[in-house]
Amino acid sequence: MADPIIQRLEAIIAERRSASSDSSYVAKLSARGRARIAQKIGEEGVETVIAAIKDDGPGVISESADLIFHLLVLLADMGLTWDQLLAELDAREGTSGIAEKASRPKE
Amino acid sequence: MADPIIQRLEAIIAERRSASSDSSYVAKLSARGRARIAQKIGEEGVETVIAAIKDDGPGVISESADLIFHLLVLLADMGLTWDQLLAELDAREGTSGIAEKASRPKE
Amino acid sequence: MADPIIQRLEAIIAERRSASSDSSYVAKLSARGRARIAQKIGEEGVETVIAAIKDDGPGVISESADLIFHLLVLLADMGLTWDQLLAELDAREGTSGIAEKASRPKE
Amino acid sequence: MADPIIQRLEAIIAERRSASSDSSYVAKLSARGRARIAQKIGEEGVETVIAAIKDDGPGVISESADLIFHLLVLLADMGLTWDQLLAELDAREGTSGIAEKASRPKE
Repeated sequence: MADPIIQRLEAIIAERRSASSDSSYVAKLSARGRARIAQKIGEEGVETVIAAIKDDGPGVISESADLIFHLLVLLADMGLTWDQLLAELDAREGTSGIAEKASRPKE
Repeated sequence: MADPIIQRLEAIIAERRSASSDSSYVAKLSARGRARIAQKIGEEGVETVIAAIKDDGPGVISESADLIFHLLVLLADMGLTWDQLLAELDAREGTSGIAEKASRPKE
Repeated sequence: MADPIIQRLEAIIAERRSASSDSSYVAKLSARGRARIAQKIGEEGVETVIAAIKDDGPGVISESADLIFHLLVLLADMGLTWDQLLAELDAREGTSGIAEKASRPKE
Repeated sequence: MADPIIQRLEAIIAERRSASSDSSYVAKLSARGRARIAQKIGEEGVETVIAAIKDDGPGVISESADLIFHLLVLLADMGLTWDQLLAELDAREGTSGIAEKASRPKE
């Protein structure tokens, strides 16, 4: 269901996870473990926030691409897929606006 | 280029941004401004990190769906699109592994 | 070793942790568990970042006060103290500049 | 009002900000500008969160010391002081529990 670019990226990440960590960023990052992958999500999230506040459009595209990339690495590390994330978004989409928000677990 | 679910979500967000903020979460959030939208990205990023460290698969799907949703709201607020983000990922995808990472601006 | 304000705050937090969660924010937050306390650290960190980028001085003071407050709640939840944090800062302080940074565990 | 360790750290940071960026981490970081300093707050916040969820006491002390250190660098960059932050905490301390929380600006 994912578009071809995300699909290809998921395939590349799956392949690189088993590659030598000398030659691949994904292999190297994955070898450092779950906490390090999660940390990257947090860092790229912060960088996206900063670019947004600075009203830096190219920065937001670049940092949020980093964010999505590392999210795909995390999903792979947890045995999850982008399609599961899309299915979750799809399930919510039916509900509308504030109602939808209210249906999520209270923060 | 985006898959149908993301496309539909982008359309819904675009439509709701101009709705009354009484009835729509997107309208309400957008009315609070860029900093508040960006803050949500940061918060959902942190919640994704926590779910990942707790090895909570459903939590990661739920929190990262929240993250993607708010990222779409941010892109809309900045006049950007998911397709631009995909194009950025696609442009990087050609390069490989550590080389790819090295090609990004130094942190 | 902590200054009187931090000391008093630590004492108040310690006392409120055992109070009824109906009447105290600290009791209520602590009852929700470690992940929820940690989440607040992440959130207040993001809000401090946003205030800093907006060059909002009063905002930085307010958000970083929130950050320190929730950090004290986290330390209490983990059986740690502000004095231990000060001792850590003191131990590093001897070393200088880039050398000091280099002596920390690689990120 | 700040305790001696924080006071000394503030003095060292103030001095190093004007040093050559070749020899000092503080000078180097400050030269990279506000956004980069703020980004470090976000990153150390995330690392504190991760250590907390992992129930890693020494990690929480180490990461939150990093967080406080970078917060002092940010305060210096904004012409603010730790004493202003303590005064803010002190002003809130009088009010109690949930009432105190309620008195802060709504999120």
